[in-house]
Amino acid sequence: QIDSARLWDTIHETAKFGATPKGGVRRLTLGPEDKQVRDWFRERCEAAGLEVHVDALGSMFGLRKGRDMSKPPIGLGSHLDTQPTGGKYDGVLGTLAALEVVRTLNDAGIETETPICICNWTNEEGSRFAPAMMASAAYVGDFTTDDILSRRDAEGVTVAQALDGIGYRGETPVGTQKFSGFVELHIEQGPILEAENKTIGVVDSGQGVLWYDGKITGFESHAGSTPMPLRRDALATLSEIVLAMEAIARKHGPKAVGTVGEAVIANPSRNVIPGEIAFTVDCRSADAAIMDALDKDLRSSIAEIAARRKVDVQFDLIWRKPPTHFDPRLVDAVENAAKMLGYSHRRITSGAGHDACNLNTVMPAAMVFVPCKDGISHNELEDATQPDCAAGANVLMHTVLALAGV
Amino acid sequence: QIDSARLWDTIHETAKFGATPKGGVRRLTLGPEDKQVRDWFRERCEAAGLEVHVDALGSMFGLRKGRDMSKPPIGLGSHLDTQPTGGKYDGVLGTLAALEVVRTLNDAGIETETPICICNWTNEEGSRFAPAMMASAAYVGDFTTDDILSRRDAEGVTVAQALDGIGYRGETPVGTQKFSGFVELHIEQGPILEAENKTIGVVDSGQGVLWYDGKITGFESHAGSTPMPLRRDALATLSEIVLAMEAIARKHGPKAVGTVGEAVIANPSRNVIPGEIAFTVDCRSADAAIMDALDKDLRSSIAEIAARRKVDVQFDLIWRKPPTHFDPRLVDAVENAAKMLGYSHRRITSGAGHDACNLNTVMPAAMVFVPCKDGISHNELEDATQPDCAAGANVLMHTVLALAGV
Ligand SMILES: NC(=O)NCCC(=O)O
Ligand SMILES: NC(=O)NCCC(=O)O
Repeated sequence: QIDSARLWDTIHETAKFGATPKGGVRRLTLGPEDKQVRDWFRERCEAAGLEVHVDALGSMFGLRKGRDMSKPPIGLGSHLDTQPTGGKYDGVLGTLAALEVVRTLNDAGIETETPICICNWTNEEGSRFAPAMMASAAYVGDFTTDDILSRRDAEGVTVAQALDGIGYRGETPVGTQKFSGFVELHIEQGPILEAENKTIGVVDSGQGVLWYDGKITGFESHAGSTPMPLRRDALATLSEIVLAMEAIARKHGPKAVGTVGEAVIANPSRNVIPGEIAFTVDCRSADAAIMDALDKDLRSSIAEIAARRKVDVQFDLIWRKPPTHFDPRLVDAVENAAKMLGYSHRRITSGAGHDACNLNTVMPAAMVFVPCKDGISHNELEDATQPDCAAGANVLMHTVLALAGV
Repeated sequence: QIDSARLWDTIHETAKFGATPKGGVRRLTLGPEDKQVRDWFRERCEAAGLEVHVDALGSMFGLRKGRDMSKPPIGLGSHLDTQPTGGKYDGVLGTLAALEVVRTLNDAGIETETPICICNWTNEEGSRFAPAMMASAAYVGDFTTDDILSRRDAEGVTVAQALDGIGYRGETPVGTQKFSGFVELHIEQGPILEAENKTIGVVDSGQGVLWYDGKITGFESHAGSTPMPLRRDALATLSEIVLAMEAIARKHGPKAVGTVGEAVIANPSRNVIPGEIAFTVDCRSADAAIMDALDKDLRSSIAEIAARRKVDVQFDLIWRKPPTHFDPRLVDAVENAAKMLGYSHRRITSGAGHDACNLNTVMPAAMVFVPCKDGISHNELEDATQPDCAAGANVLMHTVLALAGV
């Protein structure tokens, strides 16, 4: 059993890096608060006897030797970056539980056959730079390192500049650190476990993700003197697109979601009809055929709206992550650990994307979920209980021990 | 006749203060470019022999003596501030045509019975600070000077700070400069004169204006893992409000317009359901009963949408300007001048608000419109022809001469 109090204290120790007045965390990837938590994490890893290295995209790896050093380690961990108004658990729990597993093994003097390696992946959130899970996507070859290094945030800062700015552009080429498998603990970020009163989610699949960048070009004109029929209003156009996205997702019932998360009017003014708006769309399903239908329906709705309103809508798919089906052997290992430890559990699909979803495309991977309060995440009010976090960490540890061998 | 080429050159001389790459002007009220154009204007007024003073809200007055100095002057002018992406004519034409009238009278050695006073009113646009026509509204007593001085822009800067920042908080208390009447020349900012091939609009009325500040509070949550039915999406809510405003305005046919010009998502992120949005509404009609209906319909739509979507919508009327009915004697004077000069003309209602609409509540006022290309205004592409601008300036001059007496 891991040390529940130590894990809990450690989570709350990191929550100070970027703490917000409402009790959440704002620790945008590769910003100053991310540097603080990274420095802290490196120090704690080294204190736990791990050999730390950083790759060219800033992902951090802490290696614990095993008896058979010819085998690539079992990876475990998550991420330490947060949303602009994020919570204390998203990513943090999985990364610090990985540290707690190492500390527990150290305290108990347990040596594993296969080495283990704890990870902090860069930019899982995808809020400052797109796409989400950027570093693990490059790790599995979905993007080249150079492509990712050149991505820009809203202020035009590149990933390369941001990495250099905080001194986290590491020496190790991306993909060099090999793994025999990867296990990630995370809060569910949805309402199911809590509603069904289950402690552990055995994650067997994950939704696919479509991300789009949109730009509407209508025509700025005077809000008082431009008759309604002559308008080419970019915000009224966006409004129809937002409601179309919502209706399309609802049409597929619980099997799809769709969101417009960002919308920025260019040069807004109270008495000017908006002429240009940049926006983003995020839509998801665990079913690849539904993902295709979402894309098709959305594009045809947008085309109809744009033609009727005589505006131009640019709509570009910038990221497509197919649905994930986690490795059955590792999923079973998670389930066995939960059973063995006597926790209530159920199989579950991840609504959110995770680095484990990327890694699963090149190695066996699986995930452990624990409940979060009211299913709330990506919100400063995100909450989880100490016993649930500890249960998740125990399942993580026993899954890793089963895979690494004692 | 005024000097058409001199007027045209003067317009294009000021267009360099805040010139944008697309050929428009960005000269936000009381900003550095506004200071430049004000300094320029003061210098040119003084060069034309005017006695310039500035009131406590920065409005500029250039007095030309008349034979009977016991009579308050006839006022003429407009404003020199612009929208964030404004044009070269909105406000500028009326202010510089007033200067051109003075220059023409000087050149011709014409003395008037009643003095005349050319004006540059502070913050007509209402883009940086609300409401629009702020200084003339204080002039007529709709707001106190102190109230207006304490209004803040989006960055929290007050009108008082902005005035002090550019050295334009004048000595004269607001309202001290009296007028016998006021005439304002302006581009139409709408499509009617051009469509009907008329040179002069004899403005007999103006739409009333309702301005609202809105704030939607939903709930931020994860775009991937939050089921559609559990969402309290602030942007989907705004979208319904935007389309409701549009439908309500359309219901009243050509007699109403409604616009959401600003909408800002708090802490936006691609994969976060928007939890909070601030927005503004501008709606107008020339009919006070329709204005009341717009307000009522909008409020009941918003209440229904908010209840259904389980979000909170704060919706505050921050400005109500009733419809304007210009002084019949001055409207006739404008019409007579147009007739006498042989310009095609028609009576017209102003879709936009103007300082003359405020001034009309305490003195006889009227306006002269000239066409603008495709009815476009509040856009960098705003355009007008040299002959139309000159025609407007001639009508302005002859109206003023008829009122001031030669
Ligand atoms: N787990 C998580 O919140 N990931 C962020 C990426 C996403 O799913 O949008
Ligand atoms: N004339 C003009 O564009 N005024 C700005 C105030 C308004 O009508 O919105």
